[in-house]
Amino acid sequence: MGELSRLFAPDRVAVVGASDEEGTVGYAVTSNLLGSFEGEVVAVNPNRESVLGLSCHDSVADVGAVDVVVVAVPAGIAVEVLREAAEVGIENVVVITAGFSEAGAEGSARERELTRIARAHGLNLVGPNSLGILNTGVGLNATFGPLDPDPGGISFMSQSGAFITAVLDWAADRNLGFKDIVSLGNKAVLDESDFVREWGDDPETDVILGYLEDVSDGPAFIEAAREVTEDTPVVVVKSGRTDEGASAAASHTGAIAGSDEAYDAAFEQSGVVRVHTVQELFDFASILAGQPLPDGDSVAIVTNAGGPGVMTTDAVGDSRLDLAEFTDETLATLSEDLPEEANIYNPVDIIGDAPVERFEATIDTVLADDTVEMAIVLSCPTATLSFDDLAAATVRLRSEHGTPLVATLMGGSSTESAAATLSDAGIPTYFDPARAVHSLEALAQYATIREQEYASPTTFDVDRERAREILERAAERGDTRLGVESMELLDAYGIPTPEGKVVSDPAAAVEVAEAIDGPVAMKIVSPAISHKSDIGGVEVGVKQSDVRSTYGDIVSRARNYQPDAPIIGVQVQEMVDLDAGTETIVGVNRDPQFGPLVMFGLGGIFVEIMEDTSFRVAPVSEPEVREMLGEIRAAPLLHGARGRTPADVDALVTVIQRVSQLVTDFPAITELDVNPVVAMPDGVAAVDLRLTLDQEEL
Amino acid sequence: MGELSRLFAPDRVAVVGASDEEGTVGYAVTSNLLGSFEGEVVAVNPNRESVLGLSCHDSVADVGAVDVVVVAVPAGIAVEVLREAAEVGIENVVVITAGFSEAGAEGSARERELTRIARAHGLNLVGPNSLGILNTGVGLNATFGPLDPDPGGISFMSQSGAFITAVLDWAADRNLGFKDIVSLGNKAVLDESDFVREWGDDPETDVILGYLEDVSDGPAFIEAAREVTEDTPVVVVKSGRTDEGASAAASHTGAIAGSDEAYDAAFEQSGVVRVHTVQELFDFASILAGQPLPDGDSVAIVTNAGGPGVMTTDAVGDSRLDLAEFTDETLATLSEDLPEEANIYNPVDIIGDAPVERFEATIDTVLADDTVEMAIVLSCPTATLSFDDLAAATVRLRSEHGTPLVATLMGGSSTESAAATLSDAGIPTYFDPARAVHSLEALAQYATIREQEYASPTTFDVDRERAREILERAAERGDTRLGVESMELLDAYGIPTPEGKVVSDPAAAVEVAEAIDGPVAMKIVSPAISHKSDIGGVEVGVKQSDVRSTYGDIVSRARNYQPDAPIIGVQVQEMVDLDAGTETIVGVNRDPQFGPLVMFGLGGIFVEIMEDTSFRVAPVSEPEVREMLGEIRAAPLLHGARGRTPADVDALVTVIQRVSQLVTDFPAITELDVNPVVAMPDGVAAVDLRLTLDQEEL
Repeated sequence: MGELSRLFAPDRVAVVGASDEEGTVGYAVTSNLLGSFEGEVVAVNPNRESVLGLSCHDSVADVGAVDVVVVAVPAGIAVEVLREAAEVGIENVVVITAGFSEAGAEGSARERELTRIARAHGLNLVGPNSLGILNTGVGLNATFGPLDPDPGGISFMSQSGAFITAVLDWAADRNLGFKDIVSLGNKAVLDESDFVREWGDDPETDVILGYLEDVSDGPAFIEAAREVTEDTPVVVVKSGRTDEGASAAASHTGAIAGSDEAYDAAFEQSGVVRVHTVQELFDFASILAGQPLPDGDSVAIVTNAGGPGVMTTDAVGDSRLDLAEFTDETLATLSEDLPEEANIYNPVDIIGDAPVERFEATIDTVLADDTVEMAIVLSCPTATLSFDDLAAATVRLRSEHGTPLVATLMGGSSTESAAATLSDAGIPTYFDPARAVHSLEALAQYATIREQEYASPTTFDVDRERAREILERAAERGDTRLGVESMELLDAYGIPTPEGKVVSDPAAAVEVAEAIDGPVAMKIVSPAISHKSDIGGVEVGVKQSDVRSTYGDIVSRARNYQPDAPIIGVQVQEMVDLDAGTETIVGVNRDPQFGPLVMFGLGGIFVEIMEDTSFRVAPVSEPEVREMLGEIRAAPLLHGARGRTPADVDALVTVIQRVSQLVTDFPAITELDVNPVVAMPDGVAAVDLRLTLDQEEL
Repeated sequence: MGELSRLFAPDRVAVVGASDEEGTVGYAVTSNLLGSFEGEVVAVNPNRESVLGLSCHDSVADVGAVDVVVVAVPAGIAVEVLREAAEVGIENVVVITAGFSEAGAEGSARERELTRIARAHGLNLVGPNSLGILNTGVGLNATFGPLDPDPGGISFMSQSGAFITAVLDWAADRNLGFKDIVSLGNKAVLDESDFVREWGDDPETDVILGYLEDVSDGPAFIEAAREVTEDTPVVVVKSGRTDEGASAAASHTGAIAGSDEAYDAAFEQSGVVRVHTVQELFDFASILAGQPLPDGDSVAIVTNAGGPGVMTTDAVGDSRLDLAEFTDETLATLSEDLPEEANIYNPVDIIGDAPVERFEATIDTVLADDTVEMAIVLSCPTATLSFDDLAAATVRLRSEHGTPLVATLMGGSSTESAAATLSDAGIPTYFDPARAVHSLEALAQYATIREQEYASPTTFDVDRERAREILERAAERGDTRLGVESMELLDAYGIPTPEGKVVSDPAAAVEVAEAIDGPVAMKIVSPAISHKSDIGGVEVGVKQSDVRSTYGDIVSRARNYQPDAPIIGVQVQEMVDLDAGTETIVGVNRDPQFGPLVMFGLGGIFVEIMEDTSFRVAPVSEPEVREMLGEIRAAPLLHGARGRTPADVDALVTVIQRVSQLVTDFPAITELDVNPVVAMPDGVAAVDLRLTLDQEEL
């Protein structure tokens, strides 16, 4: 158990604002607490003698030692109550009261005060604007909802109180058991990361579920989730994923969430299983709580019905799972045991006249095959089969073989008692085979997550001081948008750039060009001119002999175009043969929750039109960058598709890591596009960049 | 009612193979028929006096006039029974017996005989290898399953008998009512197209559902579905969609289905709603049977819970639906009616303390708004709300306003009676808001399908005779794989090609080149050499003066590379400036079920690596081709993205239609790749082609 163990399993709880007036929150909380809580309940209400048989205290200062204080008084008074609680050394407070940051400027100020007091005293504060907390171990219902979940291994946090009410009402008939539940409310102090950590330390929590509209502290969440998901699966609905949903979320909890790409990347990087629907959330919870983890992705299907077998197989084809390929021994046994019309290959069709004994023998044979890492028992109603017998046999065989398994019982009320038998043994059942496969896929996904090792980001030897100077110089000039004149920034971080320099007179241009082998590219450098080509500010393939005159031409075109544009100079650069390589883009945006978010994709059309991109939260490790490269659909182009020479992927991987280090070192860089980064057969070259600087952060 | 009306609603049915031996198919069919059938049942069994109280006839020839004969005798005898039935003028036969094409060569021969007899006598034959047929109107259960569906508007065909058994068992508790049900079996005569047509003519069928592993006759199915879906929705699971599933289907029903792209295209082109899961199949059936069609895609959400409202909004964001934007009048009314903490914008959050009256007033206001074309009523359990009252109010308001509507009741057993009230009024309910949105999306999709007009393919004025000559000449040479030497084929169909010709001596090459303005491209032409560039068989930018010598070089390189390769000559072609246009590919494959399948995509990488393609079954109409162009992700590149000059889309659309006409006119063309087709700002040019010829079909 973690630091919040007393919050969920207190001996003594005080309700501030206890009331015997039905319909009030104070009444609901008090009566819920009196319902089944194993510990002692204390009422605080200076205006009453007693409430629901409890004699009332005047204030939290009077109640003596309590483990948790539940606050259900108006917002203005709640702050005072917290102050008193803090002063008498109370450690855990649940603020149910609304009227804080969700309710305008005054509420926000009040919430800041709550946070300040709690932090100053090291208080664990849930809420405000929370439905409350539950724990089935000690029968604690410190909420204002009439909730009575079955005990079990699911711990559940939600940024919507209504969703908790809905889920618990629904779960009552569904064999889903809960350990701790918390309504996060406005997350003034305790947030999702705290509960992930707490439940990661709790041996009685098998699965952590979350409904989130935002994550308060991205890096803290990633760190907590990485540690916890080594042992305990974390399954999250992050809503507000679409533009429409994000704007609805902003009006609901005020969540100004960052980009959905950042959430996707962060969950991927920290082993969180992200789901999009309520059905997935609880299907996944159920299988993760009830089944062992598979050793791999291969699944066997045993069915008494061909058509549903085909549908199940399609679902496997859609998933990350594979159909197990049975050993010759297995095939020989099946061939001997099954009628001629049966199909002994996976999906095994034992045909419609199968009695339970044929199911049993086949499941036994298949589970004994080492190539089978998961199984689906799929049955349609027939005259020869009892679902109840099949369920009993399935439970026995699952326990004998230890292979993770789900059942698809394709029927209605005739399946109910069989489903209950299976469910009691932790075996989920479904009508729709696609759901069965999807749930097994989640199990396989978590098996991979559990084995995942998170490499530390490589720290390259870079010239951080030189980079700082370049940025500071730009800041002094008042530049917030930098371009090619700051290519040295890349140099400083060891990112290869074509040979070249920004010069401010023709003679220097000639000197730079002479040091470069072959013709050069020349570009105007001015923070005020962004579309350089359009105004004749770029010349490529300039011969040595033309460098001087080209310098003059470029500068005078720029002057003509925009007489007041400050001109830094002209960049003289080695030519990069774009045809010899693949143009890629490495971009960075700063996400409000997760910080710098690194994007990789192939140049131009691929990123802009095909939206073929991969994202990770920085700092990124080398394995993460290799995953990014593998994730884009155009990846084969880097590996030599269509007769190309393969690009120097290792060099590209290094460049992305160095960019990640640069933006991690300098929070002042709020946006960065290194575009193109040309990936050649031997090495890469970063040819151009655009950067946005937040001087305040420097 | 259509031609099969007596099949489903007979007055008199004979069972051949009637039996009173429990556990036999003959017993099951007879006793099922005796269960609730309103008409008369006649037993045929030469070995018994009577069966289940029916006196037995010796053969179908003895039974007098019957509307349907159900055959449940061994396969060998079944053929004889059919012959007798045909001779006495029986019109409808259901062959339940297995042991036909699903069971090896002998069975296949037997099935061909069944088909021959049935066709010769114009018999409507269901099966063989069928579970049988049902009709709830006359209480007909002519199957061997213990099935007793509720009456309703769903007619259902299935290529899996077990799936019917499963679905009916499950549907019993779910307010899903059926009209006709048919187990298609091996489809020796009657297939999915026949039943689609029949049910399209049946005013009592509201929705047609199908589970299919293949479609017997693609073009017939498209024609039937186009007509029927104007009035009646058709929703289909086509399984075997993945490689894994297709191979499972082949072993189940022997279905050698064509490519899944062909099915997708055919369903799209004929208004069939394709689903992938059992849940979707019945969710869609339920909403299509119970709700009116919306005028558009805009949906209003009314909720008492913020979080679930956000999840619902995300689901809308994922779908083709839009959030309705309320009129100022609506907003003013909501603002007046609702508490300050409420959100009056869509999704409307009437907050947790809402009594039913607040729900009622809000739903009323929202449904009265003309911008609202569909609605979702979403409620979580609260102390102040009765689900039953909400259900009653929702039913009343839906009926007053006529707007399609679904309900999400986020609770468990507390929602049951409310769900039943809604369901009785045809309003589907869900726990998961994503399912509610997905179902409304299907309703909107079908509303669009119903308005769909299918244009006839344009018939262009082409030189069909010349094309035939070219193909015949190739066939005479024994060529089955044609290349650039057959460019005239495109010419004959009015498809623009660069100026040029295949010549067989240097002098002719010079003559052709002189007629072309500028340098030319020269390529070796040999059916044996497919990778021309690799062996030095292609030269581009050849100046007039070099044409003669280049001819010699190319031919001698080809001879050196492969001395025995038959060399047709050298193609001398006008140069096409690839940089001035966008390379596209128009391809054709012949699908076993649907015939020629036309593919369009952007050249090279886009098709091969990005798999960015669009398919339609030929012949394609102009609007279908325009849809194809719009479907590829890279479409913006044709319309001037990233500063390009827009391509001549009209010319490209014409070329695709002409290719479609070519492959429709010549079934002998089994594969065709016109690649590249360069789409330029003014016009297009088909630069190269590959074609596979089936001489048998010529």
